[in-house]
Amino acid sequence: MAKKTNMVIAQSGGPSMVINQSLAGAVLEARASAKIGKILGARHGILGILGDDYADLRKVTPAKMRAVAATPSSALGSCRKKPTLEDCRAIFEAFRRRDVGYFFYIGGNDSADAARIVAEEAEKAGYPLVVYHIPKTIDCDLRSCDHTPGFGSAARFVASALKGDDLDNRALGGVKIDIIMGRDAGFLTAAGALARERPDDGPHLIYLPEVPFSLDGFVKDVKAAMKKYGRCVCAVSEGIRDAKGVPVAAMFAAGEKDSHGNLQLSGSGALGDFLAGHLKANAGISRVRADTFGYLQRSFPGIASRTDGEEAFAAGAAAVKAALKGGLTKGTIAIVRAEGKRYQVAFAPVPIAEAAKYTRSLPREHIARNGHDVTAKFIEWAKPIVGELPRCEII
Amino acid sequence: MAKKTNMVIAQSGGPSMVINQSLAGAVLEARASAKIGKILGARHGILGILGDDYADLRKVTPAKMRAVAATPSSALGSCRKKPTLEDCRAIFEAFRRRDVGYFFYIGGNDSADAARIVAEEAEKAGYPLVVYHIPKTIDCDLRSCDHTPGFGSAARFVASALKGDDLDNRALGGVKIDIIMGRDAGFLTAAGALARERPDDGPHLIYLPEVPFSLDGFVKDVKAAMKKYGRCVCAVSEGIRDAKGVPVAAMFAAGEKDSHGNLQLSGSGALGDFLAGHLKANAGISRVRADTFGYLQRSFPGIASRTDGEEAFAAGAAAVKAALKGGLTKGTIAIVRAEGKRYQVAFAPVPIAEAAKYTRSLPREHIARNGHDVTAKFIEWAKPIVGELPRCEII
Repeated sequence: MAKKTNMVIAQSGGPSMVINQSLAGAVLEARASAKIGKILGARHGILGILGDDYADLRKVTPAKMRAVAATPSSALGSCRKKPTLEDCRAIFEAFRRRDVGYFFYIGGNDSADAARIVAEEAEKAGYPLVVYHIPKTIDCDLRSCDHTPGFGSAARFVASALKGDDLDNRALGGVKIDIIMGRDAGFLTAAGALARERPDDGPHLIYLPEVPFSLDGFVKDVKAAMKKYGRCVCAVSEGIRDAKGVPVAAMFAAGEKDSHGNLQLSGSGALGDFLAGHLKANAGISRVRADTFGYLQRSFPGIASRTDGEEAFAAGAAAVKAALKGGLTKGTIAIVRAEGKRYQVAFAPVPIAEAAKYTRSLPREHIARNGHDVTAKFIEWAKPIVGELPRCEII
Repeated sequence: MAKKTNMVIAQSGGPSMVINQSLAGAVLEARASAKIGKILGARHGILGILGDDYADLRKVTPAKMRAVAATPSSALGSCRKKPTLEDCRAIFEAFRRRDVGYFFYIGGNDSADAARIVAEEAEKAGYPLVVYHIPKTIDCDLRSCDHTPGFGSAARFVASALKGDDLDNRALGGVKIDIIMGRDAGFLTAAGALARERPDDGPHLIYLPEVPFSLDGFVKDVKAAMKKYGRCVCAVSEGIRDAKGVPVAAMFAAGEKDSHGNLQLSGSGALGDFLAGHLKANAGISRVRADTFGYLQRSFPGIASRTDGEEAFAAGAAAVKAALKGGLTKGTIAIVRAEGKRYQVAFAPVPIAEAAKYTRSLPREHIARNGHDVTAKFIEWAKPIVGELPRCEII
């Protein structure tokens, strides 16, 4: 292929600790190819394309790119924008002007959907464009992946935080409620279970969006845990919902929504405070504290899971490889886990629709029968993704 | 000295990441002495003495003690109890029964005060007792110490968290408010400034309990920062107070107080949510998020400052050495920093009253003239205590 084609890569949705690994994986792979001309990093997702705001990623040295890869959050900036038809037309015009034939979009299911819309509209408009979504979400809820890049590191934060917090609760007693990210899926909250080393270690109760939540049940569970352990640590998903599917947090959130229709759940301590207040008033427990782990779960530097980082890098590289190979022109990278004892994953190009819009939940077999814990199967599944945690010794 | 005397050691107040280093330092020092008989770890501070609940610390192997030292939170459990006269009488009776001549209490200013009360009442009651307080507080507000064991590691958490959070804010924009521990002193909030690598890195605004806080000033500052940086990250102490000295958080807290008269500030997201709501309503900024770092600041495993850990260990050992040496029988360990470029500290026994009850604030020379930042002098002071942070690279 004599003529080189330019590529645009961008990041979208919530940042993660390893989303820049995927950026580096894709960029370093593209630099090794004779087919790619310019490598343009659009700033703040499709907003950068619409505003012609790019970083020239050929100018970034490989050494610097590796340092960026090890840095949390989205180095190119992010956005939460669902492209309209008008946006798509403007995007193709911008791409035509800059001779762009490849578009890579790193993000979760909403970002995959945005990429799908761009890809389908390009086809309709007759603009020749290869579009690849590169999976990223700390929520781990893409249907195309056994687990998603970003999850392992966020899970590592959550499990570490709960490990320390459980020791804190051992020292001072009472009830501790920790609110954990995950709008629709309980993977991240479930990962709190990895904090446990000893039979009486917390979290003692785990509440997931997949299991209907009731305040009465909560009070009952906490009282039983207090009786058994003399203290209680609860890992609670920000996305818990009642039997009718209404998020418990919906009554506190200011109602702010993004253009994908998602209600703001994070960046507020309201849910934790509400649950703590309810326990104080209804369970006769005086010392109840709540923390909301918030954005630290996705951006804390220096503690990323090594496996997660390597896989994020590999997913980015795999997307570029697949795009250059040809054949599938609207793709995403599925992360497929091999059966058997030894942990191994493969990165497979699949149609983009498999990652777009719809999410998956924690499988039934990962949720304990009592509805407020995980199973040994979940632990076995999550451990290699999260990696070894600091050992904590007690007297 | 033919006759051996038993010792009791206990932990009190809020845990830290390195309070067990002090425990290990004291215990391993005591084990090396021929003067000490039994080494009893009272569980949950003076409550363990009153309830005759001890761990036999001679039975803990040195290897296990080192592993405990590296574990966050208070391995013996903690309490927040100010001893009454009646408690003191019960304590001396318990000590007499168990032949205790040395009492070590690891904690902050309230714990130092508790130890002081026990020491003074023992003298009045004619009970021969050597009492040493071992300094610990993430707040860094003991008057007897240049900085306190526990502060460096908590500061490391805060600076790391702000580093990641600032990158998150770079990616998605708007205003981010982070609420940081520190009831009366702004050291920990100020340490957020260590997150900065580049001139436009956050935190862009730092609010300390030492500087009167006004909502109008806050709105003005944020608007100016938004204009300058296009985004804004605020590090806010949980202890901020208005010009009359009334804590801003006082209007939200349920009014829960411990026996030292302290209002509960942590374990709630109310202050952050209030400030975020105020900005949304009064600054015309749509994306405002708040996180409260909460208990993670003092208990997150695996990220302690090495210097902090070593100093905490040394402070514990120094207390036992001083107690065994004789002379000062009611002491605490002052941490004295040498003048000059090279970082060096000494551990000096001083009268316990120097650590008890009264606290110190961030010195005026550490606070920027504008009232919402720290000085270069503060950074210089804090850096060696906190240690190198993960480098973060941007594009």
